[in-house]
Amino acid sequence: MEASTFDQELADLKATILKMGILVQELIFKSVEALKTRDRNLAKSVIKMDMEVDRLELVVDEKCINLIALRQPKASDLRFITTGIRIATDLERVGDLAEDIAERAIELSEQPLLKPLIDIPRMAILAEQAVAYSLDAFVGRDVKKAKAIWQIEKEVDHLRDLVHDELLSIMSKDPTTISRAIPLLLVSRHLERISDHATNIAEDVVYMVEAKVVKHGGGKEE
Amino acid sequence: MEASTFDQELADLKATILKMGILVQELIFKSVEALKTRDRNLAKSVIKMDMEVDRLELVVDEKCINLIALRQPKASDLRFITTGIRIATDLERVGDLAEDIAERAIELSEQPLLKPLIDIPRMAILAEQAVAYSLDAFVGRDVKKAKAIWQIEKEVDHLRDLVHDELLSIMSKDPTTISRAIPLLLVSRHLERISDHATNIAEDVVYMVEAKVVKHGGGKEE
Repeated sequence: MEASTFDQELADLKATILKMGILVQELIFKSVEALKTRDRNLAKSVIKMDMEVDRLELVVDEKCINLIALRQPKASDLRFITTGIRIATDLERVGDLAEDIAERAIELSEQPLLKPLIDIPRMAILAEQAVAYSLDAFVGRDVKKAKAIWQIEKEVDHLRDLVHDELLSIMSKDPTTISRAIPLLLVSRHLERISDHATNIAEDVVYMVEAKVVKHGGGKEE
Repeated sequence: MEASTFDQELADLKATILKMGILVQELIFKSVEALKTRDRNLAKSVIKMDMEVDRLELVVDEKCINLIALRQPKASDLRFITTGIRIATDLERVGDLAEDIAERAIELSEQPLLKPLIDIPRMAILAEQAVAYSLDAFVGRDVKKAKAIWQIEKEVDHLRDLVHDELLSIMSKDPTTISRAIPLLLVSRHLERISDHATNIAEDVVYMVEAKVVKHGGGKEE
């Protein structure tokens, strides 16, 4: 009975983290959709929905701390729980970055778009995918899936460079575009940051499974 | 004996967090100094020193988890420790942002400065001050000091707007300045983000002391 309750609590923790993950993926999608369609209301709804992400982070933290304090889990369970705390922090930041994109969308909603957006929505799809993969890797303790994110991150970085160069060239040719180009430049950085957070999660998963520190390039063994 | 060891462990946790805090303040200062003086080597040293911040975050996490798992602290001690985990996360991000500034400094080190930097170093001083206050508030459980950070954050936001408007105007008048202006624009955003993290810490301290959620505008009581 006791053991099964602990398993239930772990399953419940996993479910809450997944819920957070699904929600932030929705926020990434909607924030960029709001940017593309210049839909101010959609952008505002993203800002509102991010409050739920923030609330879920607190729920995850509480569940994790309770599990550690009351159940005194050992070894791999303890590692799973502490990874949960870190993942919730990353997902909360992803929510904040989607909110940042939504704010740029609001800023740009009353002006004509500088150009049809192609690379930014592509970056958004990759960033969403990176977040999805990182959570799959977490729940499945799947190192291979975690490492697949390195490749996605590279593509995102490449697209960010393309967007950056293109916007710089547009601004240089026509300085009247500067105030519309800079928010797009920031959006591409926000998306890059989102994929960095997915990479953080992936690194934490590899650490959790292999019990060594991948992140920060450290080589610390447990 | 037992009680004093627990107190020692708490004191040791506090000392490690303060060490992280002092280090990130140094990184903020040096990154902006590297930008001002176009000192590529100083900028590189910031990037290297940030690895120590990353390492300290892992040390804080480990200390906190061990304290929770082995000591099963209750009420205010537990709150202090979980706040420690959150603060270390914020400080690690501050270190990353200083590294971002250092990267902008390297990018700009081989070109003449666009203009003498005045508002950005001012922002840096305020951001450092905000971090220092937030840690004072944490170790002293000082709500008043924590709340003083709201005012600093306002000043930082105001300076960021000034920098933004000024750079936009420079770029509009002379598009050849764009590639030198955008990194400065990003630096002002990095500094704003640093002061946001100090605000996060301050909110966590208020929560820790008053046991209610200030952050995310929530109203959850314990």
